[in-house]
Amino acid sequence: MIRERTRELLEQLQAGDVSVEAALEQLSRLPFVETEHARIDTHRALRQGLPEVIFGPGKTPLQIAEIATVLQGEGQHVLVTRVEADAAAQVAERLPGGRYDAVSRVLWFGPEVVAPIGKGTIAVVAAGTADLPVAREAELVAGYFGNKVEVLQDVGVAGIHRLLASQDVLRSARVLIVCAGMEGALPSVVGGLVDKPVIAVPTSVGYGASLGGIAALLGMLTSCASNVTVVNIDNGFGAAHVATLINRL
Amino acid sequence: MIRERTRELLEQLQAGDVSVEAALEQLSRLPFVETEHARIDTHRALRQGLPEVIFGPGKTPLQIAEIATVLQGEGQHVLVTRVEADAAAQVAERLPGGRYDAVSRVLWFGPEVVAPIGKGTIAVVAAGTADLPVAREAELVAGYFGNKVEVLQDVGVAGIHRLLASQDVLRSARVLIVCAGMEGALPSVVGGLVDKPVIAVPTSVGYGASLGGIAALLGMLTSCASNVTVVNIDNGFGAAHVATLINRL
Amino acid sequence: MIRERTRELLEQLQAGDVSVEAALEQLSRLPFVETEHARIDTHRALRQGLPEVIFGPGKTPLQIAEIATVLQGEGQHVLVTRVEADAAAQVAERLPGGRYDAVSRVLWFGPEVVAPIGKGTIAVVAAGTADLPVAREAELVAGYFGNKVEVLQDVGVAGIHRLLASQDVLRSARVLIVCAGMEGALPSVVGGLVDKPVIAVPTSVGYGASLGGIAALLGMLTSCASNVTVVNIDNGFGAAHVATLINRL
Amino acid sequence: MIRERTRELLEQLQAGDVSVEAALEQLSRLPFVETEHARIDTHRALRQGLPEVIFGPGKTPLQIAEIATVLQGEGQHVLVTRVEADAAAQVAERLPGGRYDAVSRVLWFGPEVVAPIGKGTIAVVAAGTADLPVAREAELVAGYFGNKVEVLQDVGVAGIHRLLASQDVLRSARVLIVCAGMEGALPSVVGGLVDKPVIAVPTSVGYGASLGGIAALLGMLTSCASNVTVVNIDNGFGAAHVATLINRL
Amino acid sequence: MIRERTRELLEQLQAGDVSVEAALEQLSRLPFVETEHARIDTHRALRQGLPEVIFGPGKTPLQIAEIATVLQGEGQHVLVTRVEADAAAQVAERLPGGRYDAVSRVLWFGPEVVAPIGKGTIAVVAAGTADLPVAREAELVAGYFGNKVEVLQDVGVAGIHRLLASQDVLRSARVLIVCAGMEGALPSVVGGLVDKPVIAVPTSVGYGASLGGIAALLGMLTSCASNVTVVNIDNGFGAAHVATLINRL
Amino acid sequence: MIRERTRELLEQLQAGDVSVEAALEQLSRLPFVETEHARIDTHRALRQGLPEVIFGPGKTPLQIAEIATVLQGEGQHVLVTRVEADAAAQVAERLPGGRYDAVSRVLWFGPEVVAPIGKGTIAVVAAGTADLPVAREAELVAGYFGNKVEVLQDVGVAGIHRLLASQDVLRSARVLIVCAGMEGALPSVVGGLVDKPVIAVPTSVGYGASLGGIAALLGMLTSCASNVTVVNIDNGFGAAHVATLINRL
Amino acid sequence: MIRERTRELLEQLQAGDVSVEAALEQLSRLPFVETEHARIDTHRALRQGLPEVIFGPGKTPLQIAEIATVLQGEGQHVLVTRVEADAAAQVAERLPGGRYDAVSRVLWFGPEVVAPIGKGTIAVVAAGTADLPVAREAELVAGYFGNKVEVLQDVGVAGIHRLLASQDVLRSARVLIVCAGMEGALPSVVGGLVDKPVIAVPTSVGYGASLGGIAALLGMLTSCASNVTVVNIDNGFGAAHVATLINRL
Amino acid sequence: MIRERTRELLEQLQAGDVSVEAALEQLSRLPFVETEHARIDTHRALRQGLPEVIFGPGKTPLQIAEIATVLQGEGQHVLVTRVEADAAAQVAERLPGGRYDAVSRVLWFGPEVVAPIGKGTIAVVAAGTADLPVAREAELVAGYFGNKVEVLQDVGVAGIHRLLASQDVLRSARVLIVCAGMEGALPSVVGGLVDKPVIAVPTSVGYGASLGGIAALLGMLTSCASNVTVVNIDNGFGAAHVATLINRL
Repeated sequence: MIRERTRELLEQLQAGDVSVEAALEQLSRLPFVETEHARIDTHRALRQGLPEVIFGPGKTPLQIAEIATVLQGEGQHVLVTRVEADAAAQVAERLPGGRYDAVSRVLWFGPEVVAPIGKGTIAVVAAGTADLPVAREAELVAGYFGNKVEVLQDVGVAGIHRLLASQDVLRSARVLIVCAGMEGALPSVVGGLVDKPVIAVPTSVGYGASLGGIAALLGMLTSCASNVTVVNIDNGFGAAHVATLINRL
Repeated sequence: MIRERTRELLEQLQAGDVSVEAALEQLSRLPFVETEHARIDTHRALRQGLPEVIFGPGKTPLQIAEIATVLQGEGQHVLVTRVEADAAAQVAERLPGGRYDAVSRVLWFGPEVVAPIGKGTIAVVAAGTADLPVAREAELVAGYFGNKVEVLQDVGVAGIHRLLASQDVLRSARVLIVCAGMEGALPSVVGGLVDKPVIAVPTSVGYGASLGGIAALLGMLTSCASNVTVVNIDNGFGAAHVATLINRL
Repeated sequence: MIRERTRELLEQLQAGDVSVEAALEQLSRLPFVETEHARIDTHRALRQGLPEVIFGPGKTPLQIAEIATVLQGEGQHVLVTRVEADAAAQVAERLPGGRYDAVSRVLWFGPEVVAPIGKGTIAVVAAGTADLPVAREAELVAGYFGNKVEVLQDVGVAGIHRLLASQDVLRSARVLIVCAGMEGALPSVVGGLVDKPVIAVPTSVGYGASLGGIAALLGMLTSCASNVTVVNIDNGFGAAHVATLINRL
Repeated sequence: MIRERTRELLEQLQAGDVSVEAALEQLSRLPFVETEHARIDTHRALRQGLPEVIFGPGKTPLQIAEIATVLQGEGQHVLVTRVEADAAAQVAERLPGGRYDAVSRVLWFGPEVVAPIGKGTIAVVAAGTADLPVAREAELVAGYFGNKVEVLQDVGVAGIHRLLASQDVLRSARVLIVCAGMEGALPSVVGGLVDKPVIAVPTSVGYGASLGGIAALLGMLTSCASNVTVVNIDNGFGAAHVATLINRL
Repeated sequence: MIRERTRELLEQLQAGDVSVEAALEQLSRLPFVETEHARIDTHRALRQGLPEVIFGPGKTPLQIAEIATVLQGEGQHVLVTRVEADAAAQVAERLPGGRYDAVSRVLWFGPEVVAPIGKGTIAVVAAGTADLPVAREAELVAGYFGNKVEVLQDVGVAGIHRLLASQDVLRSARVLIVCAGMEGALPSVVGGLVDKPVIAVPTSVGYGASLGGIAALLGMLTSCASNVTVVNIDNGFGAAHVATLINRL
Repeated sequence: MIRERTRELLEQLQAGDVSVEAALEQLSRLPFVETEHARIDTHRALRQGLPEVIFGPGKTPLQIAEIATVLQGEGQHVLVTRVEADAAAQVAERLPGGRYDAVSRVLWFGPEVVAPIGKGTIAVVAAGTADLPVAREAELVAGYFGNKVEVLQDVGVAGIHRLLASQDVLRSARVLIVCAGMEGALPSVVGGLVDKPVIAVPTSVGYGASLGGIAALLGMLTSCASNVTVVNIDNGFGAAHVATLINRL
Repeated sequence: MIRERTRELLEQLQAGDVSVEAALEQLSRLPFVETEHARIDTHRALRQGLPEVIFGPGKTPLQIAEIATVLQGEGQHVLVTRVEADAAAQVAERLPGGRYDAVSRVLWFGPEVVAPIGKGTIAVVAAGTADLPVAREAELVAGYFGNKVEVLQDVGVAGIHRLLASQDVLRSARVLIVCAGMEGALPSVVGGLVDKPVIAVPTSVGYGASLGGIAALLGMLTSCASNVTVVNIDNGFGAAHVATLINRL
Repeated sequence: MIRERTRELLEQLQAGDVSVEAALEQLSRLPFVETEHARIDTHRALRQGLPEVIFGPGKTPLQIAEIATVLQGEGQHVLVTRVEADAAAQVAERLPGGRYDAVSRVLWFGPEVVAPIGKGTIAVVAAGTADLPVAREAELVAGYFGNKVEVLQDVGVAGIHRLLASQDVLRSARVLIVCAGMEGALPSVVGGLVDKPVIAVPTSVGYGASLGGIAALLGMLTSCASNVTVVNIDNGFGAAHVATLINRL
């Protein structure tokens, strides 16, 4: 995109349609919009093939609403992650029309169902009930980003038959997202059962030696299944983002 | 594979061609070969679409040669990673015909060039000269696994123009592997320039607060570019494995 | 200062103007004021060229007001950092005339605008919206300490064009303060673009593997840009202090 | 034992057979032998039901031989753990008759086969080839302590069928020792398959984020299988000791 | 259990009583029940010899009540751990008949006293008053799981005579659970006094360098008493579970 | 004490004044009192020369009042540490007559001033205002334990003249307690100025890289002044206890 | 530099002196030289005002010589850091004319004395004899980069008079580099004595709780002297680099 | 000392015996000697009551010999710690007359036996054989510093009767040094048995979760015996130094 635009500009300059100063100016004018609180990257959708996403924590409801309004003004769907219920309600007062999921804390301004663009199915696998908020975030984001999603939950490794009973779901997926806390062993087992990329999401579920998800994180990074890559603790969104990119290949 | 085999077996049982005891026996006989030192998974190539790979550390040259011989006997190419030069020489005495790369410590029993199966190009990007051993491992493994690979080296973020000058290499790849030590910032910058999955490999390059690669690892896990996933420190092999799976989609 | 004063005292002693006992006494009487809660260093302004600053946390509004009153009594401007809004209000009841900024939690007793003493401009660069509280602290403190300040915000490395579009701001600064959380990669990139000292401020923005700012801290300490030095997590004040000293050189 | 001895002593005192001073003296004379380098607990065999074991590291071959000689003099079998091959050779010069296993670095002064005292079988399960030294230590120690031992190796979770194929070994054991490095997930899976106590031994096998076995250790401590307890990294001996005590119940 | 059921199924198939498709179906139908929030493992009681236990944290009172109801419907007793008092009250509104212990936060649906199945006594030893919640959890769980339990509290190592005075309690136990925070030294001392397995439970009692129980955890893992195994910080439940399995041997 | 008592008992036995059974019983009856919640060590005052101290956290006001009542009943003064203000008020309702200091959270049942038993002065030195709660705890406890105490506050190393001006206080002390947070450098400097034992108390004062006092703790442990020993973070009580023992020598 | 070059290029394009394709090509040709092992940034000297520096570790003597030769070919002085003596000898065989300092492991191709460009003096302060290698690196690098340097060594905080005796050296410096291991307290004390920027260099000197320099690093980051910034452990080079930039202001 | 000297100087100045310039000069001339490698603090013996001690690591034999020679020239005894055997031999070539202990690596230039100055006995207690090097260092240093020393070894807590049998040694000491690795529990037990200050020395003995002595260190810092203070890992010297100061009180 940028290269094309630069070529166009250079051709205009060669043709005498713009001055050197104006060309210099335009070369430095890159695709973002300044608001009071943020320099919003409105062209990321073009560059990355996906809409800008607002990471909720550390932003006031006012800031979220402001950024979302700019993005909507650019004709984009808007996804906000990790919004607490009361903050979501405050955003809704300023910008109606959103859908809020209380389990995953995802706020979405867009159609209820997005037509699938991804070529296959993304499987979202969760070890236990307590991992659901993270898995749900991955599920919703993957769906809003245009993927068919299948969810498998409560299939932790200590009752391995529950997982084995659903091998067809695992094997029919084009890419898998596996969420687990505590010892984080599930991605290793799943990774050994499939020949597709597995994105492991450590969750902060656990106590004591789980160290807020560090145990699961380390376990996933040292997985003996070599088709496993890892994202940050509780980062269901990031997993869904990468899975989407893979599913579009 | 396993399901088909089970079905076949059940049909034979139904047909009276095998006894219950024999069926029980065969149901438990799964596809691996026992040697003195290892239970070798000879069917992983079928299950995972890739040959078994031998992780060198902690294994004696004798053990490596023994496992490699079994795998060759099954008609497979054999990849051994992280073999020190002298161990590689000792393996060669027992099992000739391998190719050894001293920079990456990869030992390969197979053709010099493997015809590409993957659909596009895998870009392997290295931040500095000291990251080359890891990047080379990724490059060789990806090549041996049937991918077209393009390498970009010495493009660390402190001289960002070196990276920007090669944006076309980045943008033309179907999946990217980015290796960096010290602060590990390169995947974040690369991730922002492309709309493809980026597999980040932290390297143990650095000293002091780099903590043997932990600083780079943490940096990559907390990347603000959400198309980045991470593998273990110095795990060029794992990155190439996943990139291969993605490139075959 | 101390040496001159000692010389003067010794000359008085030589001249018989003071007794040995009195000289001993004065040699030990150093420039500070004792209150009930603190031994306040009133001469630091002279020694360090900057007023004493009150670090808010762990002090009651009463203690803050008491120390500030002493310092005002010495004719100094007073800066208080990290004061929560309600504490600031309680201080104001005891000592009116302050200016409070809720984003950075800075409380200031002094003129709205301080005439620049520093020779050039200090650039304050923030990676994301969530880093603003720290960046604002740096901005305000640098301003109150007599510097011209220019702020650049929301220029994180995952959208590198936003930063590159503002290279002139970076290049025209005499010293730069760069605030970033998560992977903390921004100082490395900025450091590669300028030939001035860069003071990196890791922020506690992030989650999971960001470990409350430790990931950013480690990343900045291991930066491959060697014009980067680092202060404590969220320490916008310290960065502004050092930048002020550098800008006065 | 001690209580009985105390009673006996008190009765002798009551009977006038010993003086108060002598009783005091004997009450303080507890069952150990002082050598130049160690205070050897010769009665532990009685108290704990097992011989004193010499932990090799940090002791010179001379010290090892000296302590072993004392223990043999008391009529005990002697087990020495973690003795490097050359140290074992030096011990052998001073005290012949030992059996040395180079893989596990166990040195044993006793019969080649010890008749089983334990009631059932101890299963020793190892995830990979590199875990063998630790598993072998557990196997040998358990054998020398009088247990029937069955070993299952190279059954890591990324090829779960290898493990499932050996469920009968797992299920027939009275207590299980499971050794695994890297992500340390094997005890969780094994724990879910049996209703017996599982003693997990994290090994230092791995690199990078395995942190010398810490990743496996944390994973085992946070196992979702609640019949798992954990010993120190690479502590095959400790696992065998506890398994022996359990197997004698 | 599973093997028997498989055999039965295979025999039915051989006899023509079921079709291949039905056999395949049944082979994949494993013993669990799906609810909206969880895949409940109703046969674990059979497989593990113990009822399913609900880990409270991260589950809403609604979810707890739902799962408990399913389990009760299967005729099982139900144990819920770590339920805060208000959550327990909300569960009670939906599912009456439970017994709640506020110290340990254990919620139990079953008879007040469970007839002992375990062969001997489990000793639960607590170092200090602050360790009581964890020790009480171990005590209640062990009792509800059918064990005779004896409790010894406030016998920390800094007043060793308090412990020595109760050696008969220690020595008469078949298996011991020892709970301690701070330096976590108690299991080492207890371990030296008995010849039975000791399960050490580090507690999060302490401050500063106790690091939330990590100091005690590390201390217990490196215990010089080799009859000690360790569970996660504050995991009184897990200790009781393993102790129960051992006590049934 | 115990030895004397044992001798006495043995002599009574020899004299026929007690039976063997009674002697056995008494030998095991050691000096403590059992309450519902605690096994209180009433003779520690005799054994250690100091009263039993109640560590407040993790105990309910009811438990504190109960233990304190028992100790008072034994004629002892009672010290309770780290009692929050509201808990102290609740204790007071059950057991009046205490003195509560809100800064240090110390609760004391005893005379306002305790006559000094210690031979010299204990200096309590605090780096900054925020370290006062810990320093005050040390000061009060040392006073209540019968020492003359001198306090020096706000003498942090970044204004070294403030400390040097008070060298006579430092030099006249028999033992010194030095409390500091952040980088914890003060004990090193003080240690270099005196030839007496220095007990360093790291405080949790600081943020970011201070890691809740770990930075100060590590700094003090690695002090280049070799007359420095260290206690746990914020442990003003422990420092005062040891200083008391030293001051009585 | 880049902007000027771009303007020139655009003017040539406007003037018809270059084609659009050629301009595009040149815009992407940025100032570096590719060798087999590295993409060398030859213009950093212009951009950063300092020559490219070669970080020795992880590079073979061959690679070092190759890069140095390219840089010399561009007319630059060349600095190589952390070269072991034998590697330096091997480099010298390929590229003579260098100066090697064995204490700091610095290798320099350039004049023995570089005429000062910096405006004032850089003070390099070392806490102890063991910190000399790091301090020497800082001293040599600062000298080679054109600064007047003054060194103060063995002035650790536990003998504070040694430091105070040299206050004039400290006070006359324009910028200070302070190297210290163990508790790393020296920068705090020095920082309090001067009104200039202090660059703290933690060294890996120490043992046990010094954690390879982490204790010193944390101490410096949490310094109560707010004119202190920090570089990586043992990074004498980086400190000298920043000090040079500051000294040129 | 310094104060007296200052007074003297001031009186000379008052008397006209010295000029202002000479007084200024002398005030800054503090008691140390500069050599090429070190600023030696020759008066510490006076100030601290103990000779300067040379910490061996990081110093060449040449530097050690040089500093020792200067100190001997000042009439002092010289203690060098942590000198490897070959380095000690090299020092001996330059400076004969030293005594070297290979277990503790202590090198001593002074009389074989130093007459006791300390008032009582220092007990040095070691948990196991592997702790002897540290305990021996403490023993030798304490002896050379003029104390009567009693050693108790191999009395680890897992065989508590060995320790209890030597209670009279513990109780008769004026101050105790307790060395232990692994879980480091010994100081807690010893601390509970005596009413004297206990200096705990964690040792690096152990493996895995002992983390090079960190487990023992944390355990000692969180000891429930409040008469325990702690020094750095393996710091037998420091413990002996402090014990000496206490023993002279």
